[in-house]
Amino acid sequence: MSTEIPRVQLLLTGDELMSGDTVDSNSALIARELSGLGLTPHRRVTLGDDRHALAEEIAALCENSQVLIINGGLGPTIDDLTAAVLAEVAGNGLAEHPDALTHLQQWCHKRGLTLNAANRKQAMLPTDCTLIPNPVGSAVGFSLTVNNCLVMCTPGVPGELRAMLPVMLERLREQFGITLQKDILRLQTFGLGESTAQQLVMDNHPDWPEEVTLSFRAGAPQLEIKLSVTRAQDLPLRDRCRAWLDALFGDHIIGDGDTRMAEAVINLAREAGVAISCAESCTGGMIASMLTQIAGASDVFPGGFVTYSNALKQSVLGVQASTLESQGAVSEATVKEMVAGALDASGADLAVAVSGIAGPGGGSDDKPVGTVWLAWGDRQKIDTVCLCWPVERVLFQTMVAAAALDVLRRRLAGIGGQSRYFDQRRLR
Amino acid sequence: MSTEIPRVQLLLTGDELMSGDTVDSNSALIARELSGLGLTPHRRVTLGDDRHALAEEIAALCENSQVLIINGGLGPTIDDLTAAVLAEVAGNGLAEHPDALTHLQQWCHKRGLTLNAANRKQAMLPTDCTLIPNPVGSAVGFSLTVNNCLVMCTPGVPGELRAMLPVMLERLREQFGITLQKDILRLQTFGLGESTAQQLVMDNHPDWPEEVTLSFRAGAPQLEIKLSVTRAQDLPLRDRCRAWLDALFGDHIIGDGDTRMAEAVINLAREAGVAISCAESCTGGMIASMLTQIAGASDVFPGGFVTYSNALKQSVLGVQASTLESQGAVSEATVKEMVAGALDASGADLAVAVSGIAGPGGGSDDKPVGTVWLAWGDRQKIDTVCLCWPVERVLFQTMVAAAALDVLRRRLAGIGGQSRYFDQRRLR
Repeated sequence: MSTEIPRVQLLLTGDELMSGDTVDSNSALIARELSGLGLTPHRRVTLGDDRHALAEEIAALCENSQVLIINGGLGPTIDDLTAAVLAEVAGNGLAEHPDALTHLQQWCHKRGLTLNAANRKQAMLPTDCTLIPNPVGSAVGFSLTVNNCLVMCTPGVPGELRAMLPVMLERLREQFGITLQKDILRLQTFGLGESTAQQLVMDNHPDWPEEVTLSFRAGAPQLEIKLSVTRAQDLPLRDRCRAWLDALFGDHIIGDGDTRMAEAVINLAREAGVAISCAESCTGGMIASMLTQIAGASDVFPGGFVTYSNALKQSVLGVQASTLESQGAVSEATVKEMVAGALDASGADLAVAVSGIAGPGGGSDDKPVGTVWLAWGDRQKIDTVCLCWPVERVLFQTMVAAAALDVLRRRLAGIGGQSRYFDQRRLR
Repeated sequence: MSTEIPRVQLLLTGDELMSGDTVDSNSALIARELSGLGLTPHRRVTLGDDRHALAEEIAALCENSQVLIINGGLGPTIDDLTAAVLAEVAGNGLAEHPDALTHLQQWCHKRGLTLNAANRKQAMLPTDCTLIPNPVGSAVGFSLTVNNCLVMCTPGVPGELRAMLPVMLERLREQFGITLQKDILRLQTFGLGESTAQQLVMDNHPDWPEEVTLSFRAGAPQLEIKLSVTRAQDLPLRDRCRAWLDALFGDHIIGDGDTRMAEAVINLAREAGVAISCAESCTGGMIASMLTQIAGASDVFPGGFVTYSNALKQSVLGVQASTLESQGAVSEATVKEMVAGALDASGADLAVAVSGIAGPGGGSDDKPVGTVWLAWGDRQKIDTVCLCWPVERVLFQTMVAAAALDVLRRRLAGIGGQSRYFDQRRLR
């Protein structure tokens, strides 16, 4: 057991990674998991399935790192070279590993398959290696020490890699005596830009403690905010920082961990015993789709309406022809009538409606591309806002659908006042 | 001008790539574009924003390649190091590049901003470099020869990189006298597995010409099939191979290039002057959303209905209570009545309806998770099929929504017979 912080490198292999046919999401997955041990990969190399190049690269990587994680090349086909090349570099032979063979036999047996020669090749591993069990796929992983470097070999299928990472992390923790584990609190927010959030923190808390690292991961539609500490004794400090964030922009925080907007809305509606619905024009079904991607949506969502044409806005939601004629489909009056219609037609307690100009065509001086009216409410009170997101069509739909869910979230959570993006996104 | 095929390497830089906060899609984009010149990157290295490590890596990469494409590190902030490090490695100084400065001034002027010191730093480039214009962002790219290696530096923002690639490819073509350009025909298909497609070709065309490379790029829901040739004289041969594919599984081919299923459906409906609608239970709005993500969807899509609850299936679509009681919501009778109801309620000429069990809960022995009934048709004739996709919830919704669009596509295109996946996905 060593107690230095090891230098970690990654090697990704596969022709599909070099041709551009596959986007590599595995190295981000590995890096995020390693960050839990306070480790960051120093360098990553990606190579095609070329035996000579792989051997040379692995030898060089083992020379100047304490940990090398190899991903890919463990499959049954002839271009899966990792085990053979690693055996060569380590100066070990290849031998059929009895536990790997048992795993393969059981894997085939469960699926009613016979073990063929191609699959059997997956049990040929460098001698003296230690297995990394694969609970979901045929290829086992393995680790091996080469030139004082701990080499861990993992399969390229993301679901298999993910299932194997806990064992790998445990092995790293043991071998390097890693006790100072990074504790990361992740918060999901909507309607805050990264720079706005950063500025708010700096302006209000110039005394932010250096023990608590604040970082961001921008996505659409959500922004993830991370608070990390590396010592258990700093957890109370972390909690104090979280309380600061709550005070600064708590109404923009959707939830912890991976919480998605639709999940938060469904949970709040379920707790409140409120059924929700939606009437969509410019988002064209995306609000309903975001809701129904969450298991259990049916508890609170009887359904929604995609009324793309004016005729359907009238026949399905009862929007008045005179409203459409005098105000247009993208107007406050129209979305208010859409909400009332959605409540009537669905029997729900709370509904949201959107009508806007997704582009690229259809804009005017008055209502440029990106303009959208939102209305939301119940049988007592309907609120409205006009916003502008002049971005590409699908991103516009994504942001507007999330905003529609956000106004429901705020109503359900009893949050008063207005979201920051109401001001920033106002049509000028 | 040289005429060898250059050895190409990529260097990606950015702490966000090492921490796992960003998944790198740029190297796949670069690789796909390079493939049009018959070039494949040999190796790619990814590093954080570390000045010393970058300098060492760039020097090593220039030693053993003819082309090095560097991506990232051209922004205005202090951790954007590419220009400074490259100047150091090349032994050139940094100087304010007049054309880069003009670009920055114009970029700021257009946006009503004043050029600040951070932005002005982006004009400090290695002396003797050649600009690569950036038509969409502030950071200009540049190229420079270091140790006989052509180094091209590009920004990390994908949209900016994409806009700059044509000029880069032209420069590579000129410098290396590349005339034998790879001609790639891409076909989008639905309902075919990669191995099925491969097997069909091998079984029916053992004489497939080696001049025409057949390859696949599996995505959900579509599978892309590629036919590539590297010599203009082989184009007729490529056309013959395409005709073979048409004969083998032409009804599964949605279109060329990047055609998405919803795009094909909308184009066919527009040509036929047919309005379409949808009634969704398990897909929960995803069919409507796929359609409305395509600009111009409003030409043929008046709207759709997300009837998640049985109550809405009755009140909105007129499904009989007796049908729901005797057959259940996931049944042939229910989806047929949903189609009839969607035609009535929307006034469309053609509609599709789906009802199924997306999971993870809700399955039974009779109707396991993954079971779905589809119905589609007009006022004369409604067809149905029961399929089973026992996969994760959102993937299930994606595949079913694409299948719903596919049955519309087949009806609109007048394709007789049944799709292969009808047999493979039948509930057993």
